[in-house]
Amino acid sequence: MAHNGNRRWIRGFTAAIAIASMAHTAGAAESLQDVMKRRQLTQEDLMAAAKTYVPSGKRDEFLAFSSGGQSGQVIVYGIPSMRILKYIAVFTPEPWQAYGYDEESKAVLNQGRMNGRDITWGDTHHPALSETNGDYDGQFLFINDKANPRIAVIDLRDFETKQIVVNPVFQSEHGGAFVSQNTDWIMEAVQYAAPLGGSYAPLEEFNDKYRGGVTYWKFDRTRGRIDPSGSFAVELPPYSQDLSDFGKLGSDGWSFTNSFCSERYVGGIERGRPPFEAGCSAKDTDYLHVVNWRKAAELVAAGRAKKVNGFSVLMMDVSAAEGVVYLVPEPKSPHGVDVTPDGKYITVSGKLDTHTWVYSFEKIQAAIAAKKFTGKDDYGLPIIALEDALHTQVPLGLGPLHTQYDSRPGIAYTSLYVDSMVAKWDYVNGKLIDRIPVHYNIGHIMAMHGDTVKPRGKYVVALNKLAIDRFNPVGPLHPQNHQLIDVSNDKMQMLYDMPVPLGEPHYVVAIDATLLKPIIRYPAGTNSRTDEISPGKTRPGEEKIVKEGKKVTVFGTEIRSHITPEIIEVDQGDEITIHLTNLERAEDQTHGFTIGKYNVNGSLEPGKTATFKFTADQPGVFPYYCTEFCSALHLEMQGYLLVKPTGYKPTAVTAKAGTQYTQADYEKQIQQNADTQKVIDEVVAYVTARPYKNDPMVSSLMDDATDQLGKVPEAKQKAEAAAAAGNWSDAMLWANQVYQYQVKAADIGLRAKTRLDQTGATPGN
Amino acid sequence: MAHNGNRRWIRGFTAAIAIASMAHTAGAAESLQDVMKRRQLTQEDLMAAAKTYVPSGKRDEFLAFSSGGQSGQVIVYGIPSMRILKYIAVFTPEPWQAYGYDEESKAVLNQGRMNGRDITWGDTHHPALSETNGDYDGQFLFINDKANPRIAVIDLRDFETKQIVVNPVFQSEHGGAFVSQNTDWIMEAVQYAAPLGGSYAPLEEFNDKYRGGVTYWKFDRTRGRIDPSGSFAVELPPYSQDLSDFGKLGSDGWSFTNSFCSERYVGGIERGRPPFEAGCSAKDTDYLHVVNWRKAAELVAAGRAKKVNGFSVLMMDVSAAEGVVYLVPEPKSPHGVDVTPDGKYITVSGKLDTHTWVYSFEKIQAAIAAKKFTGKDDYGLPIIALEDALHTQVPLGLGPLHTQYDSRPGIAYTSLYVDSMVAKWDYVNGKLIDRIPVHYNIGHIMAMHGDTVKPRGKYVVALNKLAIDRFNPVGPLHPQNHQLIDVSNDKMQMLYDMPVPLGEPHYVVAIDATLLKPIIRYPAGTNSRTDEISPGKTRPGEEKIVKEGKKVTVFGTEIRSHITPEIIEVDQGDEITIHLTNLERAEDQTHGFTIGKYNVNGSLEPGKTATFKFTADQPGVFPYYCTEFCSALHLEMQGYLLVKPTGYKPTAVTAKAGTQYTQADYEKQIQQNADTQKVIDEVVAYVTARPYKNDPMVSSLMDDATDQLGKVPEAKQKAEAAAAAGNWSDAMLWANQVYQYQVKAADIGLRAKTRLDQTGATPGN
Repeated sequence: MAHNGNRRWIRGFTAAIAIASMAHTAGAAESLQDVMKRRQLTQEDLMAAAKTYVPSGKRDEFLAFSSGGQSGQVIVYGIPSMRILKYIAVFTPEPWQAYGYDEESKAVLNQGRMNGRDITWGDTHHPALSETNGDYDGQFLFINDKANPRIAVIDLRDFETKQIVVNPVFQSEHGGAFVSQNTDWIMEAVQYAAPLGGSYAPLEEFNDKYRGGVTYWKFDRTRGRIDPSGSFAVELPPYSQDLSDFGKLGSDGWSFTNSFCSERYVGGIERGRPPFEAGCSAKDTDYLHVVNWRKAAELVAAGRAKKVNGFSVLMMDVSAAEGVVYLVPEPKSPHGVDVTPDGKYITVSGKLDTHTWVYSFEKIQAAIAAKKFTGKDDYGLPIIALEDALHTQVPLGLGPLHTQYDSRPGIAYTSLYVDSMVAKWDYVNGKLIDRIPVHYNIGHIMAMHGDTVKPRGKYVVALNKLAIDRFNPVGPLHPQNHQLIDVSNDKMQMLYDMPVPLGEPHYVVAIDATLLKPIIRYPAGTNSRTDEISPGKTRPGEEKIVKEGKKVTVFGTEIRSHITPEIIEVDQGDEITIHLTNLERAEDQTHGFTIGKYNVNGSLEPGKTATFKFTADQPGVFPYYCTEFCSALHLEMQGYLLVKPTGYKPTAVTAKAGTQYTQADYEKQIQQNADTQKVIDEVVAYVTARPYKNDPMVSSLMDDATDQLGKVPEAKQKAEAAAAAGNWSDAMLWANQVYQYQVKAADIGLRAKTRLDQTGATPGN
Repeated sequence: MAHNGNRRWIRGFTAAIAIASMAHTAGAAESLQDVMKRRQLTQEDLMAAAKTYVPSGKRDEFLAFSSGGQSGQVIVYGIPSMRILKYIAVFTPEPWQAYGYDEESKAVLNQGRMNGRDITWGDTHHPALSETNGDYDGQFLFINDKANPRIAVIDLRDFETKQIVVNPVFQSEHGGAFVSQNTDWIMEAVQYAAPLGGSYAPLEEFNDKYRGGVTYWKFDRTRGRIDPSGSFAVELPPYSQDLSDFGKLGSDGWSFTNSFCSERYVGGIERGRPPFEAGCSAKDTDYLHVVNWRKAAELVAAGRAKKVNGFSVLMMDVSAAEGVVYLVPEPKSPHGVDVTPDGKYITVSGKLDTHTWVYSFEKIQAAIAAKKFTGKDDYGLPIIALEDALHTQVPLGLGPLHTQYDSRPGIAYTSLYVDSMVAKWDYVNGKLIDRIPVHYNIGHIMAMHGDTVKPRGKYVVALNKLAIDRFNPVGPLHPQNHQLIDVSNDKMQMLYDMPVPLGEPHYVVAIDATLLKPIIRYPAGTNSRTDEISPGKTRPGEEKIVKEGKKVTVFGTEIRSHITPEIIEVDQGDEITIHLTNLERAEDQTHGFTIGKYNVNGSLEPGKTATFKFTADQPGVFPYYCTEFCSALHLEMQGYLLVKPTGYKPTAVTAKAGTQYTQADYEKQIQQNADTQKVIDEVVAYVTARPYKNDPMVSSLMDDATDQLGKVPEAKQKAEAAAAAGNWSDAMLWANQVYQYQVKAADIGLRAKTRLDQTGATPGN
């Protein structure tokens, strides 16, 4: 019946070295057949399970980046396991990532303000991965906001949003982002027409004053940021431009944008007029816009653009005169215009036609070269006859919508919204090959690298808009359903239903996972949103609180398991700035930070410096702590902000210690420390006998363990000095702090050891 | 070479009736062995895959509700598939659910304001499901905010947050929520001590003026809301109270709360003092608080409590005098105090001891009855000797943390944080049975109904705090890893690694999925946050715009595929209120709503009415639209807000139609409508020949389809009137609107037909 927990722990620690290498064998009480019977699995189910299950520690083949729709985020998931790995905050504040909570990320969100208003969400639609020579390179991701025309840049080194750019010309945009084959340009098209630059005009002037358009953003690959000053827009008629695609290989230099409501209908149910939905789908065709963007860029560079809100816009008269924009009829109300991997064909599907139309880039160019047009639209843009542009029309089914490409030449996959099916077909020979039902109302479709010059085949994902009864019910708002389809064989096989728990994705892109090389820590003191060293960077031992009048600036640090400083005393009304640096180097050793009731919340990954600002307007005692469960003594990683009330008169109080310690307590602690050191020595001997420096993860763990041990001598010295002075309480506490450093070092050491055991490192190799 | 898309669509539609029943057989090009070899799966992997894979359309056995940590949300996932089904917004605004965007949910978030400040996130820790007779009943979920002491109520009928209550006495709280066995009380304990009621006192007065405590919230089950006026707190010493549990069965009426830093140590590294982590874990034991809460409630009712900020607090002198609070030594720095299903034992693990300690409720009661105490603490609370309370101490491993129970009597599962293992053990006979490694640093652990009087066994989930190298890397901030373990056999088997993509969960509860009965739609016009009919409820045909001075109120509706009104004209500076009602009844038929650049964003599930307010301070043309991909003509579900600039002088402009239609267009449309009606008749005949009213989903789909068709006569009449007057454009547009209603009816009908086919309904049954 004992309180000697610490001694027990030491013994347990020693035992752990033996136990950790003990393999665990599960007793298979049920056979596979038993399990299949109990769970009512068919052979086909088992095959699907075997094709999608990723065992512990194994990796997925592809990483998918999905728009989160109205959540304003990007969703990252693995294929084939369909496990969601991360939600990346983009347009919406998100506290787990502290996005919109620390000053560094607030600066990014503030770039997205409009008319002096915070926009606290986004309607993300179409993510695009950066490309080199037309194939994904794993460096950047771009995503648009349809509701509030903006575009964001995410760096795939750290999966963080680095930039938000507001479109200064248009009032909405849907058809973005798409990238040129070396990512020097990013395209987004307008959705709903409005007067340029945000000005007012009554709907009666719709034809004359409302405009659509496409924006071409210049991307600076070296800086990893969009350069608005080098960017431009091309004015287009008020045709509700929709999705786009850049040309590839032979069609590089051109882009394609489809549209709906080229009827230019203006609704008004409440005025007795038929609604938009009637007037906007009355004609059988809309217009595919074919744009010579390279020529447009040259004309802009030559000064032929007008400025709208300081932004270069190439007007339609110039485009018409110089041969920048051409129109071709397309099936009405389409969604998606998709250039084939060889760059030779362009597919368009209208949701109200049962055929997908395939255009020939060569034919379009021939018509342009021959100036063979059927006429011009009301805005002077030349119209190419369908028969002069069309390669073929292929009957696929009801509500064809979006097309992606396979690794096998000529093979495409198209979503069928009304049929709730995926069609596999041949766009060269115009032939339907296979169809598979999906559940339910598929929107976009996505194949691996399926919009690049080098599709990878293997899998297709159906982005179903309704889940209905697929999953356990979770109230009136259901998850969406992304279904994984195996396309590696002749017949497609449905593999997996993945619920989307937050957001309504529109489009997804998926990249070979080996192409991504994210970092696992930042250089010490990094502002992760600018990639520069923060002026708030603080080294261990250099923590300080600076007071200048009402301004209080804290330079603090976090490391397992304490925040420095632990006490911050200020006066009511002081303006507080806190810079915090995470001193850890081990992978995954994030710390959080919060001050209760002050809405202060931080997430600090290893090496990051983050800044928090607030006015201490409320007097009182406010605990602060690390919000990430980082270590065994995580709950003790705490501190106090004390805000003295205005006019507070201190009374003469001397602090009384809650607990006093004796010489015996001190000596017991000293013995425990000696025992612990023996464990550490064993772990160190185990690790250093192996080639641990070959493994960067183990190497950085050992660096962190050495750091913790490096703090021991100073604490030990303080303990011994206090003991010499007969101050046993201080002596005991400093000796205990030695123990805390040892425990952390041992814990990190054990983690290094586990890793070495997993990777099979043997001594001397 | 034709533009006759509509005709084709009709033909396709007819064909679909045949195609939809065509079963799809996947060609198995690879054998199971081939797949296992290619994917390097072991037999054990295949078994795990078979035990976790849930085929399309099948349901999970259990639903887990996980705290989202700093995300301020609750995460819902299925077991055994480990697929995340929903993130429920609780303390953080979330735009997909429009939580914090419509006025109804803003009112809930505003309940959580503190000191006049918006708190835009929460540090959610411990969810609790409502119980009846000690077992989950599937009605409510409660979740706390550690950083900003608050508690929230989620109704599991619609998975929405209904109430947030601020704790008026304490400055932080960790150990909540826990519910009494009939959910009349919800408990949360303080984490970091502070002066009561938010007042100021210097740290020198820590022992005298800083206090801990436990709050007992009264829950009104009929209203489904917490009643603060009937609630109370029990003052406790500044011991950093942590987790709690209510007694069960024989121990009902009592509650248990553990603590750390009963040393009452105050750190201050920056002042040369050892940090909190040293002084807060210097002693070998902390205190388990044993509280007779029923007696406390009686004392409060008898007027023995003091008021702090108007809230009843039972002070320590009363508790000591009346026998409300007792202390028992517990292993230092524990996390979790867990009452066994029979209510007879209480388990506590200290992370720095290798043993889990089991207390006997009977022994504790005997000591109290005999007034056998070893003394009192500094605050006069009686201390029971460990040997008078302890049943047994069981050596489990390094860093034992949290315990859950199995369906088999006496069997428990405990997480081992430092060992990174789960221990299976016998708490009656004090015996370790089995251990299984997890990856990595497990915090809490969760078993099915594992904290109720009736655990279900089968599975255990390990809530690992670090993912490190388990998943494809996604930057310095990693997902957490929830690992699913099969505990149905003698030896535990690891089944699945689930990444948590957003948030850092602390604790999870899981309920038998069949106990949940969520609704799929609201009564028309419901404010879902109050469960009352909204004053903004609008019936179809009664949409209107009301202007009173600068105030403009819109009563609008949404239904596939139009928003009524479609045009809203206001003057710059007008104060706008928009009420929108979703008129749909079909499951999953949510509509969204946004006005670009005005930060207006709504999510309207079937039947819901939501309200949006803003001042039209920026002149211009602002498109609005439905943000949910709801139907084939979703993109056309649009409208315009026109904000006339102050001082704008209209010019005399007559609207010009973008497109004019002829008699031939009209007649073509009429023919198309007739063809479409034939398709509808076929679908209707198919459905009505079957017992469709037995299936509520099909029945509501048919109601919606009938609604759509019900609008046809009026539109048809308008078309015919226009045709009679020779106005072919209007005639064509109204005829086209007839077609739109038909298309929607046919689409809904097809969905009903698909459902009937799936459920195997045959004619006449």
